[in-house]
Amino acid sequence: MDDFRWPVRVYYEDTDNGGVVYYANYLKFMERARTEWLREKGIEQDALLGQHGVMFAVASAQVDFLKPGRFNQQLLVSVCPQQIRRASAVLEQKVCRLSKSGGYSDVLCCGSIKIVCVDAVNLRPRPFPEIVRREILSDH
Amino acid sequence: MDDFRWPVRVYYEDTDNGGVVYYANYLKFMERARTEWLREKGIEQDALLGQHGVMFAVASAQVDFLKPGRFNQQLLVSVCPQQIRRASAVLEQKVCRLSKSGGYSDVLCCGSIKIVCVDAVNLRPRPFPEIVRREILSDH
Amino acid sequence: MDDFRWPVRVYYEDTDNGGVVYYANYLKFMERARTEWLREKGIEQDALLGQHGVMFAVASAQVDFLKPGRFNQQLLVSVCPQQIRRASAVLEQKVCRLSKSGGYSDVLCCGSIKIVCVDAVNLRPRPFPEIVRREILSDH
Amino acid sequence: MDDFRWPVRVYYEDTDNGGVVYYANYLKFMERARTEWLREKGIEQDALLGQHGVMFAVASAQVDFLKPGRFNQQLLVSVCPQQIRRASAVLEQKVCRLSKSGGYSDVLCCGSIKIVCVDAVNLRPRPFPEIVRREILSDH
Repeated sequence: MDDFRWPVRVYYEDTDNGGVVYYANYLKFMERARTEWLREKGIEQDALLGQHGVMFAVASAQVDFLKPGRFNQQLLVSVCPQQIRRASAVLEQKVCRLSKSGGYSDVLCCGSIKIVCVDAVNLRPRPFPEIVRREILSDH
Repeated sequence: MDDFRWPVRVYYEDTDNGGVVYYANYLKFMERARTEWLREKGIEQDALLGQHGVMFAVASAQVDFLKPGRFNQQLLVSVCPQQIRRASAVLEQKVCRLSKSGGYSDVLCCGSIKIVCVDAVNLRPRPFPEIVRREILSDH
Repeated sequence: MDDFRWPVRVYYEDTDNGGVVYYANYLKFMERARTEWLREKGIEQDALLGQHGVMFAVASAQVDFLKPGRFNQQLLVSVCPQQIRRASAVLEQKVCRLSKSGGYSDVLCCGSIKIVCVDAVNLRPRPFPEIVRREILSDH
Repeated sequence: MDDFRWPVRVYYEDTDNGGVVYYANYLKFMERARTEWLREKGIEQDALLGQHGVMFAVASAQVDFLKPGRFNQQLLVSVCPQQIRRASAVLEQKVCRLSKSGGYSDVLCCGSIKIVCVDAVNLRPRPFPEIVRREILSDH
């Protein structure tokens, strides 16, 4: 795949009593990858907040937890934009593990995350700033 | 609603820089409510593990984040079982906030969580122990 | 002990791969107890922020992790104020587990947490509002 | 300094309602650095567990929170071993922020973390495996 990918290492903090990655933590991994995907495009969210008064909120998440991740594994998290609207976008994301054959073909978790651009003060939807819109569309 | 409900208080640990509850934490709140719902039925998950060698894993989650929760708010989290199968069940859950009119009518977050009963050693699906099945069905 | 005590249940989210409570989470449990201790005295931190423009920050923590806590255990977290100064206080806290003999004599974790009252805008120390000072001293 | 250093980026998940890094999360950052410090020495903790049946537990932490870290900042976390004993070691750790002059001279948080090598089954102290001891001492 040609999607953006970000490496994430599994630490103790990410695991639970079942000996696997605690499922809600995959949402954190996915967010790290979204943040780095934006950064790669030159979009820093603290600057967006300071200059445009907006931030990104997650409006919905549909996630399938397919296989367990484990302590110390090296994972790769991908980001692929879909359905880009005026103030929202759906991102398809996968969390993969290095498989024995060397690639990252083992999908541990995949999902669709809908983010909305919101006003930092009243949290109401606001159109994406033009620079964000252009950069997100460039991946599409 | 007649569903099981469990109170959750929002602490600093649950919030983020946006001044609201960090969205992935609603999944934790929902799990606390599921655990207490089982406990109310006499099902202790550590005993289940010890006696039956099974635990519950989350197979998928579909969650809508509707309104922001905030520091110090008192929330109520509901659990309502749907689609109960041999080794899995879908639970409808809502996280509500005390509204000004006194009830818990403000829904912050709602979702469908599919849990699977798995073998604690190999993490493969295993039918619910009979006692669990009976208790879950009693709510249905 | 006559200290304030707050019950905390151990959920999956609190545990790690070692099968025990992840050590950094005891700091969260201690903070929940501090928040409830203040609430019992009529001090709501969101109101403090709105009315006085201050919040509490943790300046230092010295914590000993003595015994492992485990999934599903019921814990009690105590708060006992020491060294109360103009803008800071040290709180002695313990996290105990219900022991087989019935009491909460098993100490899992104990520590000294120094909190500082800070201005919410510039994060500089500010004297405790009088109502907070009076209530904290009443325990001393 | 010549200590081992590991970069950590501050994401939304790490912040709280006060607009800063939630203090307990510095303990997670410090643990990530300890894990990577061991990895750099060729010590993988999952292999240690599989081959020697031991893991590392945190016995105590003394941490000073000096300055607030913020969303999106790039931090560096250092590890410097002190007091190495048969089954325990104290590690001095600092979390620094890139300062305006370009270096990592701004210390946000510093602390002493005592880790103990424990048996993975009964959690009792066990001497460090020889390879671990040798590698840790090499830094001292």
